[in-house]
Amino acid sequence: MATTLIKGGTVVSATGRGDADVLIDGEKIIAVLQPGSALLGTDISAVVDTVVDATGKYVIPGGIDAHTHMQLPFGGTEASDTFESGTRAAAWGGTTSIIDFAVQTYGQKIQDGLAAWHDKAAGNCAIDYGFHQIVGDVNDESLLAMRSLVDEGISSFKLFMAYPGVFYSDDAQILKAMQLSRDTGMMTMMHAENGPAIDVLAAQLIEQGKSDPFYHGVARAWEMEEEATHRAIMLAKLTGAPLYIVHVSAKQAVGQVAWARDAGQNVFAETCPQYLYMSLEDQLGATSDKYGHFEGAKFVCSTPLRSHEEGHQDAMWQALRTNDLQMVSTDHCPFCMKDQKELGLGDFRKIPNGIGSVEHRMDLMYQGVVTGKITLERWVELTSTTPARMFGLYGKKGVIAPGADGDVVVYDPNGHTSIGYGKTHHMNMDHSAWEGYEVDGHVDTVISRGKVVVNDGQYLGQKGDGQFLKRGLSQYLT
Amino acid sequence: MATTLIKGGTVVSATGRGDADVLIDGEKIIAVLQPGSALLGTDISAVVDTVVDATGKYVIPGGIDAHTHMQLPFGGTEASDTFESGTRAAAWGGTTSIIDFAVQTYGQKIQDGLAAWHDKAAGNCAIDYGFHQIVGDVNDESLLAMRSLVDEGISSFKLFMAYPGVFYSDDAQILKAMQLSRDTGMMTMMHAENGPAIDVLAAQLIEQGKSDPFYHGVARAWEMEEEATHRAIMLAKLTGAPLYIVHVSAKQAVGQVAWARDAGQNVFAETCPQYLYMSLEDQLGATSDKYGHFEGAKFVCSTPLRSHEEGHQDAMWQALRTNDLQMVSTDHCPFCMKDQKELGLGDFRKIPNGIGSVEHRMDLMYQGVVTGKITLERWVELTSTTPARMFGLYGKKGVIAPGADGDVVVYDPNGHTSIGYGKTHHMNMDHSAWEGYEVDGHVDTVISRGKVVVNDGQYLGQKGDGQFLKRGLSQYLT
Amino acid sequence: MATTLIKGGTVVSATGRGDADVLIDGEKIIAVLQPGSALLGTDISAVVDTVVDATGKYVIPGGIDAHTHMQLPFGGTEASDTFESGTRAAAWGGTTSIIDFAVQTYGQKIQDGLAAWHDKAAGNCAIDYGFHQIVGDVNDESLLAMRSLVDEGISSFKLFMAYPGVFYSDDAQILKAMQLSRDTGMMTMMHAENGPAIDVLAAQLIEQGKSDPFYHGVARAWEMEEEATHRAIMLAKLTGAPLYIVHVSAKQAVGQVAWARDAGQNVFAETCPQYLYMSLEDQLGATSDKYGHFEGAKFVCSTPLRSHEEGHQDAMWQALRTNDLQMVSTDHCPFCMKDQKELGLGDFRKIPNGIGSVEHRMDLMYQGVVTGKITLERWVELTSTTPARMFGLYGKKGVIAPGADGDVVVYDPNGHTSIGYGKTHHMNMDHSAWEGYEVDGHVDTVISRGKVVVNDGQYLGQKGDGQFLKRGLSQYLT
Amino acid sequence: MATTLIKGGTVVSATGRGDADVLIDGEKIIAVLQPGSALLGTDISAVVDTVVDATGKYVIPGGIDAHTHMQLPFGGTEASDTFESGTRAAAWGGTTSIIDFAVQTYGQKIQDGLAAWHDKAAGNCAIDYGFHQIVGDVNDESLLAMRSLVDEGISSFKLFMAYPGVFYSDDAQILKAMQLSRDTGMMTMMHAENGPAIDVLAAQLIEQGKSDPFYHGVARAWEMEEEATHRAIMLAKLTGAPLYIVHVSAKQAVGQVAWARDAGQNVFAETCPQYLYMSLEDQLGATSDKYGHFEGAKFVCSTPLRSHEEGHQDAMWQALRTNDLQMVSTDHCPFCMKDQKELGLGDFRKIPNGIGSVEHRMDLMYQGVVTGKITLERWVELTSTTPARMFGLYGKKGVIAPGADGDVVVYDPNGHTSIGYGKTHHMNMDHSAWEGYEVDGHVDTVISRGKVVVNDGQYLGQKGDGQFLKRGLSQYLT
Repeated sequence: MATTLIKGGTVVSATGRGDADVLIDGEKIIAVLQPGSALLGTDISAVVDTVVDATGKYVIPGGIDAHTHMQLPFGGTEASDTFESGTRAAAWGGTTSIIDFAVQTYGQKIQDGLAAWHDKAAGNCAIDYGFHQIVGDVNDESLLAMRSLVDEGISSFKLFMAYPGVFYSDDAQILKAMQLSRDTGMMTMMHAENGPAIDVLAAQLIEQGKSDPFYHGVARAWEMEEEATHRAIMLAKLTGAPLYIVHVSAKQAVGQVAWARDAGQNVFAETCPQYLYMSLEDQLGATSDKYGHFEGAKFVCSTPLRSHEEGHQDAMWQALRTNDLQMVSTDHCPFCMKDQKELGLGDFRKIPNGIGSVEHRMDLMYQGVVTGKITLERWVELTSTTPARMFGLYGKKGVIAPGADGDVVVYDPNGHTSIGYGKTHHMNMDHSAWEGYEVDGHVDTVISRGKVVVNDGQYLGQKGDGQFLKRGLSQYLT
Repeated sequence: MATTLIKGGTVVSATGRGDADVLIDGEKIIAVLQPGSALLGTDISAVVDTVVDATGKYVIPGGIDAHTHMQLPFGGTEASDTFESGTRAAAWGGTTSIIDFAVQTYGQKIQDGLAAWHDKAAGNCAIDYGFHQIVGDVNDESLLAMRSLVDEGISSFKLFMAYPGVFYSDDAQILKAMQLSRDTGMMTMMHAENGPAIDVLAAQLIEQGKSDPFYHGVARAWEMEEEATHRAIMLAKLTGAPLYIVHVSAKQAVGQVAWARDAGQNVFAETCPQYLYMSLEDQLGATSDKYGHFEGAKFVCSTPLRSHEEGHQDAMWQALRTNDLQMVSTDHCPFCMKDQKELGLGDFRKIPNGIGSVEHRMDLMYQGVVTGKITLERWVELTSTTPARMFGLYGKKGVIAPGADGDVVVYDPNGHTSIGYGKTHHMNMDHSAWEGYEVDGHVDTVISRGKVVVNDGQYLGQKGDGQFLKRGLSQYLT
Repeated sequence: MATTLIKGGTVVSATGRGDADVLIDGEKIIAVLQPGSALLGTDISAVVDTVVDATGKYVIPGGIDAHTHMQLPFGGTEASDTFESGTRAAAWGGTTSIIDFAVQTYGQKIQDGLAAWHDKAAGNCAIDYGFHQIVGDVNDESLLAMRSLVDEGISSFKLFMAYPGVFYSDDAQILKAMQLSRDTGMMTMMHAENGPAIDVLAAQLIEQGKSDPFYHGVARAWEMEEEATHRAIMLAKLTGAPLYIVHVSAKQAVGQVAWARDAGQNVFAETCPQYLYMSLEDQLGATSDKYGHFEGAKFVCSTPLRSHEEGHQDAMWQALRTNDLQMVSTDHCPFCMKDQKELGLGDFRKIPNGIGSVEHRMDLMYQGVVTGKITLERWVELTSTTPARMFGLYGKKGVIAPGADGDVVVYDPNGHTSIGYGKTHHMNMDHSAWEGYEVDGHVDTVISRGKVVVNDGQYLGQKGDGQFLKRGLSQYLT
Repeated sequence: MATTLIKGGTVVSATGRGDADVLIDGEKIIAVLQPGSALLGTDISAVVDTVVDATGKYVIPGGIDAHTHMQLPFGGTEASDTFESGTRAAAWGGTTSIIDFAVQTYGQKIQDGLAAWHDKAAGNCAIDYGFHQIVGDVNDESLLAMRSLVDEGISSFKLFMAYPGVFYSDDAQILKAMQLSRDTGMMTMMHAENGPAIDVLAAQLIEQGKSDPFYHGVARAWEMEEEATHRAIMLAKLTGAPLYIVHVSAKQAVGQVAWARDAGQNVFAETCPQYLYMSLEDQLGATSDKYGHFEGAKFVCSTPLRSHEEGHQDAMWQALRTNDLQMVSTDHCPFCMKDQKELGLGDFRKIPNGIGSVEHRMDLMYQGVVTGKITLERWVELTSTTPARMFGLYGKKGVIAPGADGDVVVYDPNGHTSIGYGKTHHMNMDHSAWEGYEVDGHVDTVISRGKVVVNDGQYLGQKGDGQFLKRGLSQYLT
């Protein structure tokens, strides 16, 4: 097996930084060494197969994006990234693991849903991948089937308080699923928006002729995110289930999470880059020759972008500092404008929900280090270490230590990255919601299970490099 | 220089655990290696000077006790542990660094106070030691002198809202010192109890003939800890100073800390083992043939033990989990019953305040792992990693990584420790407040800067092993 | 028309007390006079038809019970008090107005439901009565019909978050009804319990063989009251509707109400005497020769009795003092044990929910004055003045002032009332949940629209004395 | 004795309104009658001495201003209104009672301070007056003297957490005085600002050459009001004393009061008109040809005006609605610009603190009714009924009912009042901070203990009309 030495860099962990060399043998890290790699008289660099020079750069554990939707059927179309294209884009951006969502639709068997996702992903991924299980139909049969998921390495499932008629679970269903969560230790993940109420507001807006993408955000009022977050917390408290709120965007929802956490409840939450950088005002202002105000469709995601004037974005950054939010995922769910977002011309409700960010998460979060919003250590914690711990991957992933997978990124703080379509963009989309964002850093080298897959602007990996990750229970709870 | 390999153990960090061997060369860790220590064909264990077998045991960074008072003059006597006896006891208990408090008394120059502490400690310590600076007289001169402390490796100072006429600073003084804290980055540490109010209550109790040690805790009501904590937080908010509250014991004080932290303020806090395990009810019930109810004097410390019925102890454990309290120090301040605690016979106000725990902190906190109150990782974080980060020692201390000092403890989860006088007790006291506590774990081996100082029940170090630690600014703020 | 002078008493209002005489002419109060009733030389007492001597007693506005259910069909039976028997019992207890709930059942027209209640009540009541409208089927047609209710004197409607399949409204329905509430000014009243979740818990308990009445309270966990209260508040915030939470029993639900009120939202809430005096532990302990543990059925109501150990009762009293709860109603919903409560033998879910208290509210709340829990003025405010203001009756009801209806109670603080079946009980029930309660006060005289209906232990009124009350909008909002 | 009938108006109380006539005989109200004043055949209006026509107007209890400082020595000068001029101005504005502050200075006997205030006021007042006692020197002697104040009709005392060296009490003194408050039932009133800290900030600003009046507000940061409010609350909690916070201006201080009240503690608070209408930005912008930026001196009061941008004014209005603030007083403390405010030219610390508002409170608060910020009833409650209840005057004052003093104001909602110097201003000041404020209402007639003292723009009273009010304990606590 090949050996690789990453030399001369500053290794950054969730708790600190220090100059050290990292030695990989085959797929695993086997040593972290004092700089110079001279060990009891041996010059390690002289005997390894490959030396990666990280002088002046940060050496970090590969990014883990715990929330992606490759090839997700949604709103009559399908997310535009395949597992192949999406995971390759992830690798370009310094992410070496994703956790995607297998879907059980209404009326379907859990096993069948999961099997379909295995089929989509197997042999196609550029990096390692795991699954959460979306449960779209909580019933006696699916509850039974869910019990076997842990053995298959699926240690978390997701429910929706939104999207009645699609993924929606009512409170009786949520209660039952959470009892199973408590019993098995599986993490309950929750899309926390009050869908029935939101759908009324959305229909009223359409009746009033307010059909532009902007009204998507008006209909999905923060009050309904706050409410659903509180409700999920109380159902979790009642049952004793661990709870993880996905894609939090409202400051008041963060307030609910903070309140539960202060009280000692096992409640966790993520936000996404779009909720840190983009606002409802941005969406309102979006326009183009081709689409006019419908240009805002590229910003349609759920939970929606929120008002900058109300301070939601600042609140998200603060919560990342205070640990009221523990990690950052993308909710990567890409759709092209052509034929996809366009479905919602004349009715914002028909715009497929989602923004593509899997490629840019590491860079966008690093920009928070540059601007002083988070520390370098917190960057690693939010993007890799905590995702690993939260979802049962730590040890294998999320840390640079002997025994861990050789998932390492060399990040250049003196580099620069221009985000946008035709620039760093490798996702299968015909536009980018991130057009024009500039980041003062650069992903130089990406190593996945010991193999250099990205280096010096070249993609060196191939389809099928990535393997399925059997995950254990959350390591935040043990 | 000698080399040491700690082999076969499970290395535990603040974020996770994994099997690995640790290689020390001279005073420094130079590598963390895959188990088996076979590195590219070389059997490391064969070439080192010393092999410590850690099979089946935890390998953790040496404990850091950030709050001790060796040889502190107090109430007409002096804390009974010298730097020699106290640091040796610390080493016995798996603590390899302390941060003690140099004292500027009223009317004294800062530099003179500090010099006196250097004199006491230099050449006498078993382990490394640093200093915080107690400022007992905030005035124009001392404010000027404080500015030079950072260069001398003293990056934190402590003020008292209690003890009028001794260490007390009024709010005008606190404000000025906090402005300096903001300007220099030094951490403001605060003893947060409303001393003027407490002294009125104490005098009234004595007037009523309530002179037993128990009334010490009655006089020092939780309301006055909560109040002072809030006041310190608001003064810190006004000035922009970072704030660290020492020895928190009231759940309502934790509530104040949590409130400030949720709002994004740089407020930190510690608790001590006695506030986790001991209660005011314990003190009320303490009695002996020799001392009668005065036996409770051994539990006299400030802040005081609090009512178990009111739930303070449970709240402290919870706050350690929720990170509303970030670390555990001892406030080690030992006094013998004979001639020392006895000074307060007939008047609890004259009992020297303090409990001796420097030797038992690692064990007592490990018992929290055994009982499921905290995780193994949190144990390391609370006792070593966070103290290092909080007080500018991380990298050198608080972590097992190449470049760090060789401060390592091998802890046996299958061992057992009986705490108490004549048992594991090496502190210079004629009793132990911890008499009878049993811990399901054991400190087997303690290595300080590469030297094995405790092994297999033997003390192998010597006076003067410990060096002064020049600390940088808090790494929690950068 | 006849004139009546109430002489020599202490008139108590919501803000204070003072000695004064009250003069009634026909149905209306026409003057409040200095004691002695000598007005510019005229001795009023000499010229009136009737003099009621209130010397040494309190003269208060007649009680208003804003939450009763006479003849309510529920769970396959019907509440055992007719409007005749129930309002007569109310009069005995010093209540001179009730607001009952007209019911629209699923599939029914609003107008038909209301008409049915008018039929039940008209010509049968001992005291004045108004209606709130229960809306059991929110749809386009009923939303339109609701708009006309204000003109008919029905200025409030009630929705249920509990009882799926019976009265339950989902969040989409609640949102639409609240928009109407905002537009019309009608008060939205809410039964705030998460019914779908509770029904799962209840079914699971039955499956486990836990069928005793006690488990009714276990299934209806406080978490699900708190949750629904929060949800109702957020939906009200989103829409701008005024909100009134009925029968609050959980301290955490009060916490939610207090939070919303502190933020300036128009949120109001009542509690009931049973939540002040009775506990889940009482229900657990209830037993009889005839019924065994099923004796607890007499305590089955929803929201349920809550644990005394958790402090809910004390919290209710405190909230009455702090005005986080603004008034006390009974939720009078009487069922006999025989043939009614007995329906739930073997399955607590089938026990008709309800306790009969309409007769005892004024006495039970007065006992709070005796024990120092509330002031005399607060007693009047909670039981009469605020109910009048809350539901658009003030001026006509709820106050002793010229122009107000002659609804006056003479209450003797030196009297005594023994509550219980065969004692002061006049409700149509074969038992009393209040058996054995003793009150240090007594309703001596009750005057309803100028007519003495109760005096000296005799009932002097007759069926049909009471008239329908057309209510205006809440006077708390204008 | 003369009789007066106020006829045709709408009587407004704290709980509601209704058309009624009010009959006064001598100094007392003897009846409240149905409109038309026909009582059992007698036309009352035909037999009284005076008829006041209130048709189309509000008839309210005379205003009670519970916080004034007539002739207060302060900062080397004396408040410019004598008891004669100040109480006459009050009468003009519809206020028929004031409670002023007798002062014990440092080193003085309580009795001597009180006697001096009796001397100043006796025989000089236009309306009734009472005293709170300022205790400027809490010591064993004054604590003893305070015990006799209740018998003299002084049921409240005030302490200062500000003004070290003048009125300041330290926490030990506050604790002792609060214990007396608990024991006697006297209300502890508190000026809650952290004076020692504020004085440091003020001195630093002066050192930096920031001497304009605006910096008065900068130095007196809201953090130091919030802090002192919390501290006072905790000391009150510890002792069990009732607490009343004077002149609250910071929204965060209101937050503290709300928090204590929600928890059931007896904590009360007032705000003043200036904190509802004026802002720090107003003060910053104030300029004149004569004074330049020193024009802002007319806005110098303590607590200071606060930033509009931070929302303090809106928060005060909201708290008046939510009852987190219970009443509105003026803190009337007038100083002329000439020779008085001018003392602070070049040093804002030397500007006498105070604004004159005693004449305008009723109007300014009525404008809140006009703009929909408070209800008509709440206006009466905030300005008369609650002040009476809070400070032991209710029954005699604060209500229109038989037995109450004939203190009645006829207020015309169709009138108009232009506030300002040379307009409605009768206070002894050479300017008005209220210059240019316009109110859509007018005080038409003012009756004080049965005597018409203001009518139709004429002052009909005389010096000495007003009598000393012996007050009882707070009626909010009984």
